[in-house]
Amino acid sequence: MIDAPGTFSNAAAAGEAMHALATELYPICRSITGNGVRETLRRLQAYIPLTVHEVPSGTQVFDWTVPREWNITDAYVKNSAGVRVIDFSECNLHVLGYSVPVRARMSLAELRPHLITLPEQADAIPYRTSYYNETWGFCLTHKQLASLPEDDYEVCIDSSLTDGHLTYGECYLQGDATEEVLISAHVCHPSLANDNLSGIVVATFLIRHLLTVPRRYSYRFLFVPGTIGSITWLALNEAHLSRIRHGLVLANVGDAGALTYKKSRHGNADVDRAALNTLRSSGNEYDVRPFTPYGYDERQFCSPGINLPVGCISRTPHGEFPEYHTSRDDLAFLKPGALGDSLAFCLAVLRVLEGNRVYVNQNPKCEPHLGRRGLYRGFGGSMDSKAREMALLWTLNLADGQHSLLDISDQSGIPYDTVKVAADALLEHGLLKE
Amino acid sequence: MIDAPGTFSNAAAAGEAMHALATELYPICRSITGNGVRETLRRLQAYIPLTVHEVPSGTQVFDWTVPREWNITDAYVKNSAGVRVIDFSECNLHVLGYSVPVRARMSLAELRPHLITLPEQADAIPYRTSYYNETWGFCLTHKQLASLPEDDYEVCIDSSLTDGHLTYGECYLQGDATEEVLISAHVCHPSLANDNLSGIVVATFLIRHLLTVPRRYSYRFLFVPGTIGSITWLALNEAHLSRIRHGLVLANVGDAGALTYKKSRHGNADVDRAALNTLRSSGNEYDVRPFTPYGYDERQFCSPGINLPVGCISRTPHGEFPEYHTSRDDLAFLKPGALGDSLAFCLAVLRVLEGNRVYVNQNPKCEPHLGRRGLYRGFGGSMDSKAREMALLWTLNLADGQHSLLDISDQSGIPYDTVKVAADALLEHGLLKE
Amino acid sequence: MIDAPGTFSNAAAAGEAMHALATELYPICRSITGNGVRETLRRLQAYIPLTVHEVPSGTQVFDWTVPREWNITDAYVKNSAGVRVIDFSECNLHVLGYSVPVRARMSLAELRPHLITLPEQADAIPYRTSYYNETWGFCLTHKQLASLPEDDYEVCIDSSLTDGHLTYGECYLQGDATEEVLISAHVCHPSLANDNLSGIVVATFLIRHLLTVPRRYSYRFLFVPGTIGSITWLALNEAHLSRIRHGLVLANVGDAGALTYKKSRHGNADVDRAALNTLRSSGNEYDVRPFTPYGYDERQFCSPGINLPVGCISRTPHGEFPEYHTSRDDLAFLKPGALGDSLAFCLAVLRVLEGNRVYVNQNPKCEPHLGRRGLYRGFGGSMDSKAREMALLWTLNLADGQHSLLDISDQSGIPYDTVKVAADALLEHGLLKE
Repeated sequence: MIDAPGTFSNAAAAGEAMHALATELYPICRSITGNGVRETLRRLQAYIPLTVHEVPSGTQVFDWTVPREWNITDAYVKNSAGVRVIDFSECNLHVLGYSVPVRARMSLAELRPHLITLPEQADAIPYRTSYYNETWGFCLTHKQLASLPEDDYEVCIDSSLTDGHLTYGECYLQGDATEEVLISAHVCHPSLANDNLSGIVVATFLIRHLLTVPRRYSYRFLFVPGTIGSITWLALNEAHLSRIRHGLVLANVGDAGALTYKKSRHGNADVDRAALNTLRSSGNEYDVRPFTPYGYDERQFCSPGINLPVGCISRTPHGEFPEYHTSRDDLAFLKPGALGDSLAFCLAVLRVLEGNRVYVNQNPKCEPHLGRRGLYRGFGGSMDSKAREMALLWTLNLADGQHSLLDISDQSGIPYDTVKVAADALLEHGLLKE
Repeated sequence: MIDAPGTFSNAAAAGEAMHALATELYPICRSITGNGVRETLRRLQAYIPLTVHEVPSGTQVFDWTVPREWNITDAYVKNSAGVRVIDFSECNLHVLGYSVPVRARMSLAELRPHLITLPEQADAIPYRTSYYNETWGFCLTHKQLASLPEDDYEVCIDSSLTDGHLTYGECYLQGDATEEVLISAHVCHPSLANDNLSGIVVATFLIRHLLTVPRRYSYRFLFVPGTIGSITWLALNEAHLSRIRHGLVLANVGDAGALTYKKSRHGNADVDRAALNTLRSSGNEYDVRPFTPYGYDERQFCSPGINLPVGCISRTPHGEFPEYHTSRDDLAFLKPGALGDSLAFCLAVLRVLEGNRVYVNQNPKCEPHLGRRGLYRGFGGSMDSKAREMALLWTLNLADGQHSLLDISDQSGIPYDTVKVAADALLEHGLLKE
Repeated sequence: MIDAPGTFSNAAAAGEAMHALATELYPICRSITGNGVRETLRRLQAYIPLTVHEVPSGTQVFDWTVPREWNITDAYVKNSAGVRVIDFSECNLHVLGYSVPVRARMSLAELRPHLITLPEQADAIPYRTSYYNETWGFCLTHKQLASLPEDDYEVCIDSSLTDGHLTYGECYLQGDATEEVLISAHVCHPSLANDNLSGIVVATFLIRHLLTVPRRYSYRFLFVPGTIGSITWLALNEAHLSRIRHGLVLANVGDAGALTYKKSRHGNADVDRAALNTLRSSGNEYDVRPFTPYGYDERQFCSPGINLPVGCISRTPHGEFPEYHTSRDDLAFLKPGALGDSLAFCLAVLRVLEGNRVYVNQNPKCEPHLGRRGLYRGFGGSMDSKAREMALLWTLNLADGQHSLLDISDQSGIPYDTVKVAADALLEHGLLKE
């Protein structure tokens, strides 16, 4: 079974390993289509069994059309001395995502409308894209812009925007049941660490862990470009969505902030309750938020015609840290400890979902004689045995076919793990039945 | 359509006009029957199309009987020098309402049991009535009472209490639907400004505004004497009550206090939710109270066998301002600005009710491609377009046939007006259907 | 009818009388079986009509077996000088309950594992039992233990543990209906005052009071050994449990602390709501707690297969006062005033349950004309008549066949007694019907 959170033996080691994988993936220039995603998925295949799907440009997916594939080789702005003053090879954020090819000479005045900066963070390169408006542009620091003299500039974006494919990865782990847990991370951002790589590496290590343990549920992991990727997957897999019992989107799970859980559209789905229960008993700070139709791919999973019970796990939510969508969301911003903690939290939530069942007390009239079965403390009883005994009594009292173990934990305030241990002991003694 | 609250073009001007109408009506001696009500309604007919109904004394209306009609010409107490020391012609509050005729001479000691004062407000004349106990009396300031010497007084109340009619006014505005909004104000108080005239003038100006705009609902306004008037109307119109979808009682809507909304007996009727939503997004102080079976004619509209969804709008509620039911509830206590604000609030609530509908997202599987339809901001997006976009996303997400626009506003925290604009844009693009 | 709480004529006198009865019962050495319980019940029979039941050892009661009967004549530890250094005849707490017979000589080292003290309360003798593990022991103060020198001790426990009976008392008061209120107190503790005797004496005086008044419900009082006693009674009376409409367990109702009400497993049963309503309008401090499957016999009454609406009344709950289960829970710890107040509270709760009914307004369309029936104040109306009038209006408004008098009191915030008076007046005038 999945490790208990406190006992997750190698959260720290896993954190370092996840950071190392993020470091390997960081330089790749990803977008919603193109070779950056392909290369990213190819590298993940060294870690996990991942199927890569290619969906042709022009494919109709619900209200959307799979766009043309974008690739980029090089891009720069050279001054009249031939020096690259903006250089894609230094940082792939310098190019506005999905920029069409350009090769031209122009004055600063002509260039300026194509230059994007962040005046309030003068040292940061912003991350911007223009997927559905054909245009081109460069992103640079506000300081850099201020230092550009009037000159005759050579502008080059060596990109292609042509019919091709949208690429995504899928990893399916068969469990005892055909019912599935869906876990999704987006793979469409270039050199951004928290907003993209953190979700990718935590999902990867979740898979590695799940591969080693028995599983009640089957698990389906998606590594998809944001929005268009999840829409594409949903459109192509619509017939099978009813198998999905629980789901999580992972995003921004590597910064130093406290854990944040955003509820599914249902608001009280089992995955929402499992996450809350786990956070409550963690002893750490945390934040819980209601569903909003904005954010990551939970927008699509929770659209009214899909309406899956999918929540979203992050640490500091998107847009609420100043590094968000800038060059400052880099590998230093990503903390191995935070990655390890996020992984342990995901495992704890899955552990609740895996173990959560509805039992029926087989001896419902008055309490059973626990002492006779060795389940009751003697007269010297320690605090530990007292806590265990309270869990036994609560589980017996609420095991009426109406309350799951999660319900019992929520109602009694006893940590889920303690309730689970009590339920297992009662099962063993024939006092509970599913 | 009904003006948006911020854009109600002439709230200030309307406030002044309402105060002028109140000034015109102020001197008339109204009661639950008689010529004062008739004269009041006659004057309102100069402003609005008003049907005047006369119901004969003795008519059985549910558990009540329409009382005899009371009229009064003059009343006074003269001292032995022939000077009027209490004079109805100076202030109609001086006579206990429904006083039977009297013509007698008596000592101060004999008179005293018939004199009513307010010791705690020595300068104020109290307002009192005795509709269902035949008696007579005078109301005066406590100071005036203290100054009355022993003397031989001449007492005259030139009133009549005879079979006649109960008079009330009704104004019906046909809308697209036969479903009605009921709005009621009481017309039975003599020279009191806030407690009576404020409701009358705001209702009158509501009618004037509604006459100029298209209406989804039909509107029925009642100008009725309190309690017996609404009971009479309900008894005579019982067969048609099922048409009433929403209702409001207006009372004490002209003082300087913040708005107060008292919920209907349902507690969560659409009119209750529309009022709360409007108050919440107003940015002003306000008070919301649960239903209580005490107050104005909502007592009758919300009796268990009638149980209409009728709330009550006031500023400072009855009995909670010291001027209540005294001569100090005068024209100076009535603020044009407050009348204008109350009118604007009523219109805002009606605007929500008129526009509130349940839509179904026609593209419920994942988000529709808003950018393709020009509904999505470009990469420079302003805060305004961001707010508009959030309203689009919330409306699409909750337009599942279960949520009205009011529900969407309540759940998202986005002002109703913004949601309505978003819904209209989505309707126009065929993305919503009713 | 049951006295109103404020008017319970002799709460103080009853408190003294209950304390006197507790004083009479205090020296008896009770346990879950044996002559101590028999003697206790025999003495109660001088006060109330009590049936004593004897259930043979070995009887199967649900998952439990009625244990062998335990009796004790004498017990001591004598030093080599023949002096009793621990003496059962001084305090029956000195013997571990259900100790098997012993007659031996031993050193202090051999004796020590059989000596139980409370190091953190060095002057108190702990109360301990070992019902289901055959062993023996002595309880003594920690000071006493410290003062014992090494010596050759003579140990004697003159007890018997043999097939016999479990004894319990039952008092049934027939009322108008066969539906029952169940009230239970445990009778298995030796010389402990609050934890045992308080419940016994309050239940006894409740019976004495109920005998003198008309009763809508039938009442069944149980005086049973904790756990095994209630389990035995439930097992033997399973066929008739559906008669029980409301129930209360009384325990620790005599200390100086504020009243505590622990809800039934239902959480919102009428008895729970009656208790809360009574506490809220009492003006005193109080505590209300959710159900937990730990405590007194509510554990059995509220087990999932029994699930009766039984709450628990106490003052300071078990385990939350330092005197709990020690020799310091003595007659001085038991306060006559607290006993009287607990009795008055029980009566107030029963009074609500007895009087609580659902009425239907016979004049539901608008308010009835209260003035015509003399139910409405004149123009000088006092505050009292105003409060009474509000109760009339609330009762009429909510008497729609959906709301009980308790609902009306809860929703209006008007004390139950005032609502009841109003309902009775309306009934008398034919305005309500059950």
